[in-house]
Amino acid sequence: MTIKNAIKRIEKVLGDRISTGNSIRKQHGTNETYFPEMLPDAVVFVKNSKEVSDVVKICNNEECPVVAWGTGTSLEGNALAKRGGISINMMNMNKITKVNTEDMDVVVQPGVTREDLNSFLKDKGLFFPVDPGANASLGGMASTRASGTTAVRYGTMRENVLGLEVVLADGKIIKTGGRSKKSAAGYDLTKLLIGSEGTLGIITELTLKLQGIPEAISAAICSFPTINDAVQTVIQTIQMGIPMARMELVDSQTIEACNDFFKENMNVSPHLFLEFHGSESSVKEQSELVSEIAENFFGSDFKWSSKPEDRSKLWKNRHNAFYAVKSKYPGHKAIATDACVPISELAKLIDETALDISKSGIPGPIWGHVGDGNFHATLLIKENNMEEKKIAQNIIHRMCERSLEVGGTVTGEHGIGMGKLNYMESEHGYAWDIMTKIKKTLDPNLILNPGKVIKSN
Amino acid sequence: MTIKNAIKRIEKVLGDRISTGNSIRKQHGTNETYFPEMLPDAVVFVKNSKEVSDVVKICNNEECPVVAWGTGTSLEGNALAKRGGISINMMNMNKITKVNTEDMDVVVQPGVTREDLNSFLKDKGLFFPVDPGANASLGGMASTRASGTTAVRYGTMRENVLGLEVVLADGKIIKTGGRSKKSAAGYDLTKLLIGSEGTLGIITELTLKLQGIPEAISAAICSFPTINDAVQTVIQTIQMGIPMARMELVDSQTIEACNDFFKENMNVSPHLFLEFHGSESSVKEQSELVSEIAENFFGSDFKWSSKPEDRSKLWKNRHNAFYAVKSKYPGHKAIATDACVPISELAKLIDETALDISKSGIPGPIWGHVGDGNFHATLLIKENNMEEKKIAQNIIHRMCERSLEVGGTVTGEHGIGMGKLNYMESEHGYAWDIMTKIKKTLDPNLILNPGKVIKSN
Repeated sequence: MTIKNAIKRIEKVLGDRISTGNSIRKQHGTNETYFPEMLPDAVVFVKNSKEVSDVVKICNNEECPVVAWGTGTSLEGNALAKRGGISINMMNMNKITKVNTEDMDVVVQPGVTREDLNSFLKDKGLFFPVDPGANASLGGMASTRASGTTAVRYGTMRENVLGLEVVLADGKIIKTGGRSKKSAAGYDLTKLLIGSEGTLGIITELTLKLQGIPEAISAAICSFPTINDAVQTVIQTIQMGIPMARMELVDSQTIEACNDFFKENMNVSPHLFLEFHGSESSVKEQSELVSEIAENFFGSDFKWSSKPEDRSKLWKNRHNAFYAVKSKYPGHKAIATDACVPISELAKLIDETALDISKSGIPGPIWGHVGDGNFHATLLIKENNMEEKKIAQNIIHRMCERSLEVGGTVTGEHGIGMGKLNYMESEHGYAWDIMTKIKKTLDPNLILNPGKVIKSN
Repeated sequence: MTIKNAIKRIEKVLGDRISTGNSIRKQHGTNETYFPEMLPDAVVFVKNSKEVSDVVKICNNEECPVVAWGTGTSLEGNALAKRGGISINMMNMNKITKVNTEDMDVVVQPGVTREDLNSFLKDKGLFFPVDPGANASLGGMASTRASGTTAVRYGTMRENVLGLEVVLADGKIIKTGGRSKKSAAGYDLTKLLIGSEGTLGIITELTLKLQGIPEAISAAICSFPTINDAVQTVIQTIQMGIPMARMELVDSQTIEACNDFFKENMNVSPHLFLEFHGSESSVKEQSELVSEIAENFFGSDFKWSSKPEDRSKLWKNRHNAFYAVKSKYPGHKAIATDACVPISELAKLIDETALDISKSGIPGPIWGHVGDGNFHATLLIKENNMEEKKIAQNIIHRMCERSLEVGGTVTGEHGIGMGKLNYMESEHGYAWDIMTKIKKTLDPNLILNPGKVIKSN
């Protein structure tokens, strides 16, 4: 029962689609943030559910760790092979199996990315709304319960996955959920698996809910004197029931980085990035209402984008804020963290975090999906500077503690991975033990993505 | 280790708040549909989570079955004491603990009913949208993953519960979820517990998401020549992305019963009951669009209700259709069943079911939340007529089989209880074994609502 044996046995099944080469292992052992390299012993490239099942069965037999790999864009080290073993690259399972336009659903393999899916759907008048920024794989997005800019209107992966096919630790394949919009037939295994970060099973197929492309879309940016003014605008907008499609906060540090990176000329001050979906007249009505609210909180310098190309530039800037910020600080590592709180607590939490950051001397732009109470801090630390890492982790610690104090959560969308494991106990108490019990029931040999989400395994 | 011992030990803790009297046991052992009486050995009336924990701990120790009881309005025998034991009446735990108007959430005890909650919220400009018809308790609604008329817009209990407090089989109390609108912190135990019908734990507190009362509400009924025309109207409306608040189908048998019961004068033909929420202008726009679509499918005789009193009469009629139908057939038992399918399959499924019913000679009105693909048949069988019961069960069987064939589910909202247990295997396959494994992990003595949802226990 060794990793070595597992590799030998998988070779017999997959031939040259298993690799122990250093460069491939490295590709599957690095991450976009601050976690050290953690290389799997081998990487396998699978083509279908049966192969995933075969690989997992062997791993279970040999007690060999196994973790699925998509685009590698997760931010908390979620897919790193912490204990070595096998990394299963899912990106060749990239078929869009069936689209049902009448029912507005689609069946996809896990290696399809959200941008690929949306390109495919465009001429059908449909789109998949969940948008975490990165062009992540849909399997990965389900595994981390991703959300992003549009969750305020359309929900997260939790609300947009109707059903799954999953390979369990023993290699058995189950189907959960289905194509109906709701069901009361037994335990909701779909929702249990979404956000379980590959620790309960490996997703090999997803049935997703789609939306009709709205008749009218309009986007805007608006500048505010303070973060608090921007957040108050968001709170009033949500309370009025205005069905915002996107409502994003970007602080002045981020605006500065974006101005440099994209050669833009935005006011260096906190901004809201907004998007409205609906009929022509409802988009007009929503825009007017939000403009009025924003003006009450000193919002100014509205820039509207009704043309698709302007809109896509606006959101490209927003999505690439992370890369803009990273490029402003060469020789630095980015520690991207997030938390989510009841919206009434958001302004205070952001203010306190911003104060912590400014005191620390570390650059740390803040942005977030504020319509959900979710915000991000991206802390830039000099590479290999352990002292700065400690300072950054202290900032994160205070952010987590404050979130929990006000009934929030230590992560709204990045997941637990390795970065937030220390907060599971304080967030969940004995409920974390229950998660661990469920894990041990479904994966008694603890082969699936070990070292993540649950109690020390 | 006996039920008798459990009762004695509970008496020591709760004094006269445990009853073994026949009439009280009968109240907690009957149901609104066709299941035979199943009396618990004793009924306890609890005041707080600690008492629930004490009772469950004793039951676990004595291996005594225990089931929570709310308003007794479930339709698949979900809360009947199938194996006797203790029925915990939760209705004295009826406090609204905390409402957060800024965050639009509320913390309630499980015995609060949805109507009580909405009366309380009214002057705060907020409401809780999930509306299964019956004035059910919120704990019961979460346990069965209830939905109803407004799910097409606002989702089911699955989407509207942010967090829970739950007493587990060993008496331990856990908190799941929280007050933030989303979280990626570990397994979604909240969603696992919602719809588990009291087999994994007993809900002792709920944190619920609220909605702002819309600026404008308008409702209407509209008559169609055939069910298919009505359903096609629904499909087109959903596809156009019109954010319907309610979209209910009622067949001509039901209309007839409602005309008699409520002294109404509706066309005896299939109807849609509609409701629009939004701003004045968006409600106007939505209404016009849906009227146009309906006219394309020969919809006629629109009757609009913009005044609150007319609207509440309209929905009272719809909600009480079950009682109208029951009163039309004295000496009959109602077998209420539901299924949910992808919406493109709905018209065919309803047609085939209606044909089965008309061939059978048993009255069986059909209605449903067709915006979700969810429909109900209410089969009226003569009391103690085993042959009619068999015929009715055969109709249900064919309805379930057809739903599964087209990727649907055997229940959209009534739950499994005892009535749909035989379909768990065909709907879920090996995933049902996984549910059963989770059950056995969390409740090794199988004391929580035995005989429901999971494999023979």
